[in-house]
Amino acid sequence: MRVLYYHCLSPFARKARVVLKEKGLDFDEIVVRDWERPDEFLALNPAGDVPVLVDEGDRVICGATPICEYLDEAYPKPGLLGPDPVTRAEVRRLVDWFDHKFFAEVTVNSAGEKLTKRVRGGSAPDSRAIRAGRANVHIHLQYIAWLTERRTWLAGDALSLADLTAACHLSLVDYAGDVPWEDHPLAKDWYARVKSRPSFRPIVNEVIPGIPAPAHYADLDF
Amino acid sequence: MRVLYYHCLSPFARKARVVLKEKGLDFDEIVVRDWERPDEFLALNPAGDVPVLVDEGDRVICGATPICEYLDEAYPKPGLLGPDPVTRAEVRRLVDWFDHKFFAEVTVNSAGEKLTKRVRGGSAPDSRAIRAGRANVHIHLQYIAWLTERRTWLAGDALSLADLTAACHLSLVDYAGDVPWEDHPLAKDWYARVKSRPSFRPIVNEVIPGIPAPAHYADLDF
Repeated sequence: MRVLYYHCLSPFARKARVVLKEKGLDFDEIVVRDWERPDEFLALNPAGDVPVLVDEGDRVICGATPICEYLDEAYPKPGLLGPDPVTRAEVRRLVDWFDHKFFAEVTVNSAGEKLTKRVRGGSAPDSRAIRAGRANVHIHLQYIAWLTERRTWLAGDALSLADLTAACHLSLVDYAGDVPWEDHPLAKDWYARVKSRPSFRPIVNEVIPGIPAPAHYADLDF
Repeated sequence: MRVLYYHCLSPFARKARVVLKEKGLDFDEIVVRDWERPDEFLALNPAGDVPVLVDEGDRVICGATPICEYLDEAYPKPGLLGPDPVTRAEVRRLVDWFDHKFFAEVTVNSAGEKLTKRVRGGSAPDSRAIRAGRANVHIHLQYIAWLTERRTWLAGDALSLADLTAACHLSLVDYAGDVPWEDHPLAKDWYARVKSRPSFRPIVNEVIPGIPAPAHYADLDF
């Protein structure tokens, strides 16, 4: 059986899970507290972090980008990267944007401080980082609005890995209560469309251990 | 004419340049001091950083990963990602390793402090960061040795984007004088093989403005 090594605090693991569901693939989940660096998990992935996919035939695929690219090659329907090299380049540009720029400017400052630190234990949340995340999120929501005014989905006419990537990061920041949806109605409309997909339901129904979700988090009509 | 927007301080821009050369593609180079965020460059790439490729037909491709994936799709010979989904997943795992893990643990601490800060101006190099980079580089050189004891190249029997990615990061750390080659002969042998490729010659012959290269830097028999 196909297995996904997962933790709900990782936006990258969230993305691998959503892509598996978009592809209609069955899988078991094993939750890994990857920051504790368990030996048997390090043997699977020397980088030490989730997600890791063990596909049929004991194919071990480590990391969100390798997993998503692999799944789109091995299980091409429905395609999530686009039909031609130029469209795929635009999808990958936006995947990079959210996995690196949004992650560093918003996810780490918001969900990293308010959720990850609480689950892992250790140092107290840094209020300056939280404020920085809250300030930074506006520019990204404006960018989502700008894109969706011109396109149906972030990278073009079809839903793509760009939408799923952005939505996975936003889901964690939303859980932390740091997405000012009311100020960004176009971004909210786009997120409502992603959130209502069956592939996204396990994300919005999942509770982070010890931290209740905000009331609107799982609401499809938030 | 194909154009690469480039700066020698970026390991990502170095990689895009090496891949273009491995593919045998002609291109002009425009050097961009991307940290100054010039308006005309931001109009090309809203993320604001090099590399950007403008391919024939005015196709604008932003970012090293999108560029490398695009080039391997649009110009498949020679292939740099591998012949099948599992090999490509291994190449992409190692690309991620060097672009994120090595970059954060070594490149930023070494070349970031000693080269980038000097060219950009501003704050003084942080000696603690430099020491951290010097400590961290050993584990990565050991990993390169471990891989090349088992495989011809990092990801398998053929040279791939994994080798080029690792070598581009190492080239900057080597320029900063922070690669202890003598302690890691297997990694050194592997780097000598990459360094001797014609695609890599412009990298080893390039001088960072105002900072002379160490004597061994361009030497193929270092």
